[in-house]
Amino acid sequence: MLLKYIKQVEIERIIENKRSLIKDQVITEFPFTINVNGCPLVTLLCTPENLDYLALGYLESEGFIQDQDNIQSINYDQEKGTINLDLKTDNHLSMYKELNPPIFTTGCGKGTTFYKASEILKEKSINTPIFITPEKILNLVNEIQEKATLFQKTGGTHISALASTKEILLVHEDIGRHNALDKVFGECIIDGIDYTDKIIVTSGRISSEMLIKCAKRRISILISRCAATGLSIDLAQEIGITLVGFVREERINIYSHGWRIK
Amino acid sequence: MLLKYIKQVEIERIIENKRSLIKDQVITEFPFTINVNGCPLVTLLCTPENLDYLALGYLESEGFIQDQDNIQSINYDQEKGTINLDLKTDNHLSMYKELNPPIFTTGCGKGTTFYKASEILKEKSINTPIFITPEKILNLVNEIQEKATLFQKTGGTHISALASTKEILLVHEDIGRHNALDKVFGECIIDGIDYTDKIIVTSGRISSEMLIKCAKRRISILISRCAATGLSIDLAQEIGITLVGFVREERINIYSHGWRIK
Repeated sequence: MLLKYIKQVEIERIIENKRSLIKDQVITEFPFTINVNGCPLVTLLCTPENLDYLALGYLESEGFIQDQDNIQSINYDQEKGTINLDLKTDNHLSMYKELNPPIFTTGCGKGTTFYKASEILKEKSINTPIFITPEKILNLVNEIQEKATLFQKTGGTHISALASTKEILLVHEDIGRHNALDKVFGECIIDGIDYTDKIIVTSGRISSEMLIKCAKRRISILISRCAATGLSIDLAQEIGITLVGFVREERINIYSHGWRIK
Repeated sequence: MLLKYIKQVEIERIIENKRSLIKDQVITEFPFTINVNGCPLVTLLCTPENLDYLALGYLESEGFIQDQDNIQSINYDQEKGTINLDLKTDNHLSMYKELNPPIFTTGCGKGTTFYKASEILKEKSINTPIFITPEKILNLVNEIQEKATLFQKTGGTHISALASTKEILLVHEDIGRHNALDKVFGECIIDGIDYTDKIIVTSGRISSEMLIKCAKRRISILISRCAATGLSIDLAQEIGITLVGFVREERINIYSHGWRIK
């Protein structure tokens, strides 16, 4: 039996001073440990759906793997929610463990993204000439909201999507906004989807780490329904990413590289 | 000069297909390193306001300090945003560094809260007999929204508050919901405020870690404007915390220990 991502609970609800016992649906929170070469690397608190995508996306975000070629084997037990990945090299592993101090992020998800990543990323800026219209931006954001079925049931998740300039290609939801994004990239690794000419659309706020996760994948357009932090805007400007936020109803904020929007 | 928590940026805004250049305010994201006994312990990505409260609240959340008596000295440079705390004992420090695997949370903020905390907390359940009316719950949530001035300007922060059963006592905002909560507890440590008969009110979702932060402080009522995860509900039930979510307009969800609401 699969792990359940939605849990039925009995709660009391008060509406206009009337108190009643009702059944409600809440989002599951699951501690998911990623084992690498037989050792536990990290435990992510997440929604127990597509945990293989989450593991691969996370490992790519943190620099352990570049693509599927780095992976010797994957043992994923979908029912227990456990995974062990054997990597061909584990050079990165010792560096990761020695990292001091760790950086904990603003992110719903987790994150030890190496902060210096931003320095490296600035050196090879993203110039990908893809273009999108304001109308299409509004459509994509509306579309992810329609696809956010766990959010509609529980109000407790974020959603991230990979899109072309025409349509949403795949979406993932998670209690953590970083996890939802890592699941998107994880599916791309497993299914061999090229994301360098694609767009990321998310319900979550854009902090530096969300921006860096996209920059590492050479994503050129990042669209959020919510706010972006000052640091993420600075990085997007320097790296060459079109960063768009607060996409709601008929309103769009373009924070950087607006030349891709026309 | 103080670090600025709000940044002025020039952005393009599209409203109903009209594109214009405007000045906008976005929330600052600041990498804040907490140094303990001369060594960097952690870097939190946060809003650079009340960083001393954040450092103390974080250290208490993670078990480094119980109260001000554990602290030998605090060197806080408000302008540079740096802090060094000398603790009287650093027994906890080596344990912290050896913790393997780290747990990264769903949280806007950060977190390596030791997961086994929940096991320990269940053993001494919270029975504090304080009571609140549904009307007061609605009032407290409305009040924190009015006090969320950084959110009103930038749309990029969470707010947490310490309240009595009558009124909001203090509030803090941060890009991370965990940070906002740690700042509240940090102010309590510095000002010697007893929080065991108090209530926490927050704009952020309640994941297990937000719940555990409150449980460690023996908070008996936790109120959120947003969702709670299945795991946080289970923990609240077992530990004895009244967990209330989705407080909006005339609606309140009571997830656990509704006997304190009457």
